[in-house]
Order: sequence, then structure tokens, then C-alpha cells
Amino acid sequence: MARLVLKFGGTSVGTIDRIKNVARKVKQEVDAGHEVAVVVSAMSGVTNQLVDYVKQVSRLADEREYDAVVASGEQVTSGLLAIALQEIGIPARSWQGWQIPLITDDVHGKARIERIESGDLVARMSTGEVAVVAGFQGVSKDGRIATLGRGGSDTSAVALAAAVQAERCDIYTDVDGVYTTDPRIVTKARKLGRITYEEMLEMASLGAKVLQTRSVEMAMKHRVRVQVLSTFEEAAGSALPGTLVVDEDEIVEQELVSGIAYSRDEAKVTLVGVEDRPGVAAAIFGPLTDAAINVDMIVQNVSEDGTTTDMTFTVTKADLDRTVQVLEGARDDLKFRRLIADSNVVKVSVIGVGMRSHAGVAQRMFKALADRGINIQVISTSEIKVSVLIAEEYTELALRALHTAYGLDQA
Amino acid sequence: MARLVLKFGGTSVGTIDRIKNVARKVKQEVDAGHEVAVVVSAMSGVTNQLVDYVKQVSRLADEREYDAVVASGEQVTSGLLAIALQEIGIPARSWQGWQIPLITDDVHGKARIERIESGDLVARMSTGEVAVVAGFQGVSKDGRIATLGRGGSDTSAVALAAAVQAERCDIYTDVDGVYTTDPRIVTKARKLGRITYEEMLEMASLGAKVLQTRSVEMAMKHRVRVQVLSTFEEAAGSALPGTLVVDEDEIVEQELVSGIAYSRDEAKVTLVGVEDRPGVAAAIFGPLTDAAINVDMIVQNVSEDGTTTDMTFTVTKADLDRTVQVLEGARDDLKFRRLIADSNVVKVSVIGVGMRSHAGVAQRMFKALADRGINIQVISTSEIKVSVLIAEEYTELALRALHTAYGLDQA
Repeated sequence: MARLVLKFGGTSVGTIDRIKNVARKVKQEVDAGHEVAVVVSAMSGVTNQLVDYVKQVSRLADEREYDAVVASGEQVTSGLLAIALQEIGIPARSWQGWQIPLITDDVHGKARIERIESGDLVARMSTGEVAVVAGFQGVSKDGRIATLGRGGSDTSAVALAAAVQAERCDIYTDVDGVYTTDPRIVTKARKLGRITYEEMLEMASLGAKVLQTRSVEMAMKHRVRVQVLSTFEEAAGSALPGTLVVDEDEIVEQELVSGIAYSRDEAKVTLVGVEDRPGVAAAIFGPLTDAAINVDMIVQNVSEDGTTTDMTFTVTKADLDRTVQVLEGARDDLKFRRLIADSNVVKVSVIGVGMRSHAGVAQRMFKALADRGINIQVISTSEIKVSVLIAEEYTELALRALHTAYGLDQA
Repeated sequence: MARLVLKFGGTSVGTIDRIKNVARKVKQEVDAGHEVAVVVSAMSGVTNQLVDYVKQVSRLADEREYDAVVASGEQVTSGLLAIALQEIGIPARSWQGWQIPLITDDVHGKARIERIESGDLVARMSTGEVAVVAGFQGVSKDGRIATLGRGGSDTSAVALAAAVQAERCDIYTDVDGVYTTDPRIVTKARKLGRITYEEMLEMASLGAKVLQTRSVEMAMKHRVRVQVLSTFEEAAGSALPGTLVVDEDEIVEQELVSGIAYSRDEAKVTLVGVEDRPGVAAAIFGPLTDAAINVDMIVQNVSEDGTTTDMTFTVTKADLDRTVQVLEGARDDLKFRRLIADSNVVKVSVIGVGMRSHAGVAQRMFKALADRGINIQVISTSEIKVSVLIAEEYTELALRALHTAYGLDQA
């Protein structure tokens, strides 16, 4: 017998029939003898509708009121699932954020969880009652409803799993696990049985949108074992095993590289002929930081003539126009000769905790790309990842080449 | 300067534009120097949708979960109206039932208000902040969301007005007041400037569906002055005065009769040849009470032969089939000769606190109906009302005749 937290996203509870289906899945865990808490999102489409209502009323709505409005979606699902469970004989009750209480700071709209006073909830779970928790929401210290921001239900689930010391947090979604790369592009992609928190973090932030980055960070911090699995695919009436996101020491034999991620959401900016003097980087990136523009990869070329250099960096595509605007505005100060903006780029990354203890991982990447005639524009590396920026048209070719080069292809 | 509670129903907040319109009305009262609390219903259609969801999941849903689901509609409106008010420069915040708190008993789905701890709310109102209160809901003593039943937002508003000692509770709706009778039938019907609680109660329960009976009872108990007025009709940008529902002593010159109400929701049952013995009424109505069937008018004929009599009474049309079933089931005990059920009847009532001190009110009614050849089937009277049951086809004729007979026609 174990204590489990299950989380079902908006698509999984998108209709009344799907809510009933979720109830059956929860029943399987209860019948297996587990104590179960379920965290639910709003029915798909509902949150967007509510956000749209708010926007129609005001472009700059009071976040506390925004939260009161949008948190209602999860409230509805939690009540409906509790009823669906009771209907098939499983004792259940819904818990809103303020009822647990799940206490947040007062940064409404993207609140952070401060603590979960789960005593009452655990006491009722231990009597065999399923706790159906409205995700995405808590209550701030002044008693107002606070939401955790988009994707907050994953965070709710992981935080709850930590608070009730659950053996595992199962995130049911519309994919059946984490793959070595995007299976829509690389047909030989394999589902991973296990992946480390660190790798998952890189995968999530690089465009493999399975789990919210924030929930993975929280899982890593509290050592919550997370499983990603499919709501819809079953074998013999039971959920198929998905991908376990766990601590490194739970993975006996670590692959060198676990996966190949990519992000099309990058744009490249090059400042040509910037003065090569101390403080020039600060002069460039200061105004961008002030404008809340996140810079990702940065490369500064070696100065050819000792007086000027080129600076290349990436921002998200959505920030590109603003970035250009900010830099043009600072032109007098920065004294660059030319600004080149290019949004036809993609960032491809190989990820694996195994590379920490192995040399040659980056080299294998460079060679595989070179063999296909793919030019690398920017390189950045971290302890467990190597990322390169290449022309967007090579995305599929690069992913397939790297997937094969690191031995990830399905047998 | 006064403290006011305004209440807007589902039609009044049915779209984002209408919510903005409500905000403008609230602003007028704030600009006039009043402290304002606003009670809102769910946007029209939302509650029905939520109830439908619950029914799709279970025919016999846990009322606590039902409440968590359906109370979300008012939560949304309260947040949106608070934002709409802020948008036009009026400080405002939303209050859910549990935030006030408005404490109810634990009869979920049709909870009764036990008390409203309005200290925090009043303190913030006194700083000029409009309190936007989610109607229809409170929190039970065990911390669960509880709804007050259909039409509960009127009750929320009146109860809040009593708790904060408001000078008046304005119920904005889609009619512009209480009329002497149904203006769709009697074109000469007049809007009443004032009406007593007692009269309003009779009007409400007799089919003039302007205010929920329960909210009028509460207003009468706590002497809350209630105004019924239109959300949509305006003169020079201000709400038109509606009908004030007040204590009798606020009405200087009382009309003999204030209005003529009618209800098509009646069905007549006659038991022919019932034994004329002590206890026979109890034998008939006992099984109906057990079946939760409400009996309205009752007439027992004088026995002709000293051994049997006829018993006539009315139930709602919805209860008629069940009534016949129950009585047929008790036939061996009741020993009636024949059961006649008739749903082609209407109850017409003349209502007025003035009749308490005047004789001849009933006689004028009987004569007016007799002059038109309308046969009276059943009569019942109370201190402030005379009701008759007549064939349904005479409804319009009877209403017009009585409206004229009591001098209610518009000049």
C-alpha cells in the first residue's frame, strides 16, 4: 500500500465522459489498496474562456480578481470528479486551495506555494476517502484566492505529493511519456523508462512540453518521484507505464545522452562592430534586462583589430522586435556598426547526465552535424547539455542525425 | 449618504457588456456618496450548464459537491464586476461566501443563512471600496461551500442588507417593478409605488415571480426596505424608480386592494362520497403529507345524507399524477366512490392589507365574477387575500373584471 498523488490535465477531464474515465482510473489505484489524492485542472477550454472574459473587461485587471475568476474552472472539475467517484462507490471529496489550505505568497496570477497544511486532508485520506484537489490554486495569507500561473496544476500535484510524502506523483497527460526526441520528427524515437530531474528540466525548458519546468524543479528539490503517463492509452484496462522522473541514483545504468531536444522559439541577434572595451557586455544586456527580455545563448567573437568585436546572442522569437527596438534606442551608447536579426534558427540540444563523466560528447555532435553539411552558428554548453544554433531548415535532418549518432534509435 | 445593497440577477450580468453596464449603475450610487455592496448572480445560463454537468455525472449527487460546482458561477461574476468597477475608477473587491464569511447550516443545496460576520466587509466598505459579493452561496460550519437554493441571490442580498444595516436593498431585474396585475394580460395594469411585505409575499407565492418568497420573508423579518427595479430601463441615464417593498406603516394611504394575482399552477382533486366521520380529513391528507405533496385550498362539503360527503382540494399541477396515485393506493381505507382530477383551473386572488379593516371586499369579487358568468369552484380567504378557483379559460376575463372592479385601472 502506498500513498499516491495523481494529476489529470485539462484534456483528460475535458468532457463529462472523460471525467468518468478518470474516476475509473482512480478507482483502479484505490482498489489496489493505495491512498489517493487527485489533482485536477479545469476542463479544456474553460480557463481560456475565463481569461478571455477578464480581458474583455480590462486589459490590466486586478490580479486578485483575475485569480477569483480563473480559479473557478478547477473548482468545477474537482466537484464533478468527486461526484463521479462516489457514483462508482469510491468515497471522495473535493478540496479547494483555501480548504486544504494550500498557502501561497501574494503574487497573484503567478503565486508561489509557501506551505501546504495537509493535516486534515491526510487524516481523511487515511480513512479511505479520495481527496480531489482543485489544481492551480491556493489562498494567499490575506485570504484571497491565488493562482499559480499557467501549468500550475502540475506544480500543485508535485507540491502536494511532497507535503503528504507520497510514494509517487503520476502526471496523466495526452502523451504517454518522455521520448528520446520528438517522435513526430524522428520515427525511431524511444520512450524513456526513466530520466533524471536534471535531464527533464533541460528537456522541458527546451520545448519537450510534457511537464512544466517549475513542477520539475519542485520535484527535484523535494525528491518527489514523478511519472508521466497517458490518460488515454491503456493495455488490458490499465494505464501503460510511462516515464519515471527520478533522482540520478535511481537509474542504475545511465546512458551517455538521454535525449535530443529542440526549440524553434529562438531568434538570433548579432551586433557587428561593437567597441571592444570592458563593460560593453553590460552596456548591451543591461537595457535588455531592464526591458524584461531574457537572453539565452551568448557568443562574443575574438576581436580582429583589437578595437571592435561582434556580439551574437539569442532571445525568444516573441521578444525579437522589442530587442531590436531597445538596441537601436541605445545605438549612440553602444556604437555598433550593424544589427543583424535572424529568426530562421533552431536550437538543438543533446542532453544527458552521463556526459559529465565522458569526454567527446560535444565532438560527436559537431561531427554528426558537419557530416550532413549543417553549419553551427552558436554553441553553448552546460554540465549536462550541449546546444547549438543552426538554420531552421535543418531541424529534422539534425535531429535524426544526432539521434542515430548517440545510439538512441529504436532497435 | 446611505449604505445600499444592490442585487443584479443573471440576465443583468449575462454578458460582458451587461456587466460593464452594471458597473456604471453602481458607479452612480457611489458618485452619489453612498457606501455600496453589490450582490451578483451567475451569468445567465451558467448555473443551468453547471447543474446539467452534475446531472450527467450522477442523478443523486452529493449536495456538498453539487454546491462546490454550481457556486463557481457567482464567483466568476463577482470577480468580473470588481474588475469592471476598478476599470472605471471605482475601488472594489470580490467577496466569496467563505471570505465574508456568510455562515450557513449544513443543508447543502438549499442551505439557510445562520449569520453573516460582516465586520471586515463593512470596514472596507467604509473606506469607499465597493464590496462585490457572490450571491447564492455561503460556507457551512465545516468549511464547505453551501448554496442557498434557486433564487438564493435575492436572499443573499436581503440578508446582507440586514447584516450591514443598509438603508435599502435594490433588486435589479428584468421587470421594472411590481404591478397591480400581470400587464401582459391587463393592459391597464399600473406599477405600484409601494407595497407591503405581506402583500408582496402573497403576490410572489401566487405567481408574480418578481422576488423569491424566501427573500421577502427575510426582508419582513428584519424590516429591510427592498426596491424592485429594472436593470435595462433608464431615464436620463438613471434607473427609473421601481416598487418599494416596505413595512405597512411606511404606506400613508393604503388601497383596499393592491393587486390581483393568479396562478395557473393549480390542479383540483375531488373525492366524491367519502365517509363523513371524524378523522377522515386526516386519513386523506396524511398519506399526501407523507409523499411530500403540498395541499393548498381545501373545501369539505356539508354532508347531504349524513353518512358521506365530498372533499375538494388543490395541489400543484406537477404533483397531480402522484396525488391520484397516492389516493388510489389508499382507496380501501378512504372508501370514496369516485376521484375527479381537473387541471383546467386557475387560482385568482385579490390581495390587500386594506381589506383587514373593510367589509365587502370578497362580496365585490364574487359579484364581479358572477356578472361575467364565471363560476367559482372553490373559495379560500386569509386576512389580506381572497382566492377563488375558476375554470382556466376565464383567466383573462376574470383578471380584467376584478382589476376594474377594485378601481385599479390606470387613469
